[in-house]
Amino acid sequence: MEEQFGGKPWIKIISPKISPPSLKDNTADVDRLIKGIKKCLQTERISVDFSLVKNLPQTLRKCDYNIDAAVFEDQNGWHLIDIFSAHKENRIHGMAVDLGSSTVVARLVDLPSQEIRDEISFHNPQVQIGTDILTRIHFAAQEGGLEELQTLLVERLNSEIHLLAKKHHIDTSSIVAISVAGNTTMTHLFLGLDPYWICREPYIPVINKPDQIRSKELGLEINPEAPVLVFPNVGSYFGGDLIAGILASGMMDRHAPSILIDVGTNAEVVVGNCDWLMACAGAAGPALEGGVAHMGMMAGPGVIDHVRIGPHSGQFTIKTIGNNPAVGICGSGLIDLIAELFLAGMIDERGKYVIRKCGDRLKEIDDIKHLVIVPPEDSKTGHALTLSQPDIDALMRSKAAMYTILTTITNTVNVPMHEVSRFYIAGTFGSFIDPQSAITIGMLPDLPLKTYIPLRNTSLEGATMALLSAEAREEIFRIRDQTTYLELNVNQEFMNAFSAAKFIPHTDRSLFPSVKVRAS
Amino acid sequence: MEEQFGGKPWIKIISPKISPPSLKDNTADVDRLIKGIKKCLQTERISVDFSLVKNLPQTLRKCDYNIDAAVFEDQNGWHLIDIFSAHKENRIHGMAVDLGSSTVVARLVDLPSQEIRDEISFHNPQVQIGTDILTRIHFAAQEGGLEELQTLLVERLNSEIHLLAKKHHIDTSSIVAISVAGNTTMTHLFLGLDPYWICREPYIPVINKPDQIRSKELGLEINPEAPVLVFPNVGSYFGGDLIAGILASGMMDRHAPSILIDVGTNAEVVVGNCDWLMACAGAAGPALEGGVAHMGMMAGPGVIDHVRIGPHSGQFTIKTIGNNPAVGICGSGLIDLIAELFLAGMIDERGKYVIRKCGDRLKEIDDIKHLVIVPPEDSKTGHALTLSQPDIDALMRSKAAMYTILTTITNTVNVPMHEVSRFYIAGTFGSFIDPQSAITIGMLPDLPLKTYIPLRNTSLEGATMALLSAEAREEIFRIRDQTTYLELNVNQEFMNAFSAAKFIPHTDRSLFPSVKVRAS
Repeated sequence: MEEQFGGKPWIKIISPKISPPSLKDNTADVDRLIKGIKKCLQTERISVDFSLVKNLPQTLRKCDYNIDAAVFEDQNGWHLIDIFSAHKENRIHGMAVDLGSSTVVARLVDLPSQEIRDEISFHNPQVQIGTDILTRIHFAAQEGGLEELQTLLVERLNSEIHLLAKKHHIDTSSIVAISVAGNTTMTHLFLGLDPYWICREPYIPVINKPDQIRSKELGLEINPEAPVLVFPNVGSYFGGDLIAGILASGMMDRHAPSILIDVGTNAEVVVGNCDWLMACAGAAGPALEGGVAHMGMMAGPGVIDHVRIGPHSGQFTIKTIGNNPAVGICGSGLIDLIAELFLAGMIDERGKYVIRKCGDRLKEIDDIKHLVIVPPEDSKTGHALTLSQPDIDALMRSKAAMYTILTTITNTVNVPMHEVSRFYIAGTFGSFIDPQSAITIGMLPDLPLKTYIPLRNTSLEGATMALLSAEAREEIFRIRDQTTYLELNVNQEFMNAFSAAKFIPHTDRSLFPSVKVRAS
Repeated sequence: MEEQFGGKPWIKIISPKISPPSLKDNTADVDRLIKGIKKCLQTERISVDFSLVKNLPQTLRKCDYNIDAAVFEDQNGWHLIDIFSAHKENRIHGMAVDLGSSTVVARLVDLPSQEIRDEISFHNPQVQIGTDILTRIHFAAQEGGLEELQTLLVERLNSEIHLLAKKHHIDTSSIVAISVAGNTTMTHLFLGLDPYWICREPYIPVINKPDQIRSKELGLEINPEAPVLVFPNVGSYFGGDLIAGILASGMMDRHAPSILIDVGTNAEVVVGNCDWLMACAGAAGPALEGGVAHMGMMAGPGVIDHVRIGPHSGQFTIKTIGNNPAVGICGSGLIDLIAELFLAGMIDERGKYVIRKCGDRLKEIDDIKHLVIVPPEDSKTGHALTLSQPDIDALMRSKAAMYTILTTITNTVNVPMHEVSRFYIAGTFGSFIDPQSAITIGMLPDLPLKTYIPLRNTSLEGATMALLSAEAREEIFRIRDQTTYLELNVNQEFMNAFSAAKFIPHTDRSLFPSVKVRAS
């Protein structure tokens, strides 16, 4: 995707020419530096934060006024970040961060070359306070809770930054900018802003568009004057991670409408084009993320991501990530499995087990039907991996919710589904999902397969783009202002559509002409 | 003077209308506030410093979004200083400070009404480190010295601010701006900037034009986000106090050239008009400031400020400040005295005592001639107040230096002295001096007396003007950029002129047609 974000950089290292002072030119040190930078950048607007002023003369004099300067631009012109002796080669770096509530992913980027030097990921240490966002919001309301949540994150980020710097033999002061995309609550906790009102009607964040922040204000151990670009949010339930996703997809550059979905704890959906963007979010996720099914888990080694059932043999062909012995199943594997069970006639349109088709694989445990997917001898744990009827029921609700949200939002903006030119699927989910299976179970609409475009970590990708390009950075604010958030009105009409979608693929089969049950 | 600077204020208190959040309008608190302020100010450019963001929601909610906001404007648009509950009346205040090396004078101003609520003055606590600037510069170079000098000043200023706030029943957080005019070294010490290079060739300040600073960065205990307007300097020897003086005089608004002099430890001279300003400084001061003469002292109760000698009686009529018993003489008194002694024929053109004219008043003490000005019985101390021959010699050098500087600078800019339309004399010196006496001794040029305009504390006046008016604040930067500093070249030509000026009034009597020795 990177070639998309050429664009002009907003962070630069320059080598201004500065003549040492003399009796003939007694301009002060700071003003002399500013004059040199103005000439070099051909601008009239350059500001130097007062906290930098104190030490500038010493640095200027130590290297005989022979310096490189790191600068960045915003709507108020250029700003000095730091100066370095030009007697050695100076490289400047940036960090792009996807601030996930469970996992944080960060990239170290060499700024002038735009080369990604490294990418690391680690568990969000706030998980120790609570795995879900609501627990953290409640914890933040306790005495000192907000500070603790912020400190946990910032300290972990700092230790990762120090490790990265050591590994790549760079000084942390050479990291002169950072861009951070996360959902609204995560962004608030990162900034030390109280998320109290985010989860309370009428769901008001402290801030939508954070203004210029310097890293020292957050305790980040990169260059203290490094600008921190924090992605804006549209509201409590539509955060900077999604704005980054829209940016990474490029959907706001095309005339034909596209859809972007991001399936996490919530299912977030955006539909739009270069003129408008409509977004909504709904609880569709847990089952898809592997958080509900009995054997469900996040993608990882040994996790089942693809399943095929032989049309004649009825034999299960199971693929796990890394081809390790099976330990569980992830969302995309579950979709595959349900689709195959349906195509093989082992579950019916309502998602119920068809006893005569399941044979020996179907067991009753505590009066609940379980289908053995991986027998004990093939699993890593030595126990059978099974799919229970309630697991299927949960997925049926999730897929119905997703489909209903998709139809509701496209109906709202009056875009017939077949006019959707591209359908982006973000996240880990997107990179594993088999669109055909998702269509088969009626979770995704029956569009030509080439319409579906998996995107990996769009939040990280968007954060990287905005770090590297002034246009991309401006674009995120345009996206924010252009996005209308649709509050899903869970009324009778929605519930009717939801009920109709709780069948495989749907009560209205004409919506899914490509889905054909195999001859049995 | 204040009526000159109506102008538009750059600090305001406004009452933006902010509707509380609802499900229909889920704009974040900060963005909601910004929206309200934008509408109220009819501007698109308003920024909120990140350090303010944290507590805004609590304040907004506590007063049901019914707030007043203190804001200020600079070249980057408007900036929020603070918000206050509108359930009570909010007054905002500013401070204007003349940062003298011996005395600090500060005003508390009610901002909307521009009414001066109070004016205080106190000795600069840095005097305990050193009375002269050079000692302080050397002290600043020691380990921790700079911090100590800054802390001394800031802490004293803070305690005065708290006293003022208490006296006027206001909260220190209602003081939302401060403007500070001082010489270049004092300004550096106030800002915690190293003055090391100010007194070393080629005499380079750290900074000429300090950019936006907030009070919290200096530890000032007023509103933490209050902008601190620090007057710029032209160089190490032409500081913000003089720029404030030029502003207060209004000389840059007129076509006809004016002269401004400020006599302190140095004599500083500015000549110019609306198109150009030329400035220089030279050591002319000590004798005039009362720092040299045996009985000399700064103006104060009992200090002689006017002297007349009866043309026939030879009787001394002595006026002291407050009509208290005499304790000493100040610069302006000394000028009066020397002029009268000359007119009475008691000293000759070289400033030497004429024995036959002085009579009994002349005593020899340790082989040095002393003239009794106040006999023991009339002085406060019970000792005679005397003027020695070396005292007169010192004043002769000072007055010659002043006159030579004046002729040098006017020659440089090619303005004949008689074309000078106004001659401003700043400072305490200016408010006591008798221009006729200064002309008589040849210190000031022989211009019509109405040309001479005494100004009081122009540094404080200028600081007040720039605090109150956006135009005045812009003007100080225009003055700075327009001022050329003339490095006085003490060459043979200067020394010749200086020698010629060491006579009363001058070797060239035609320059002083109004000075006529009384018939004796």
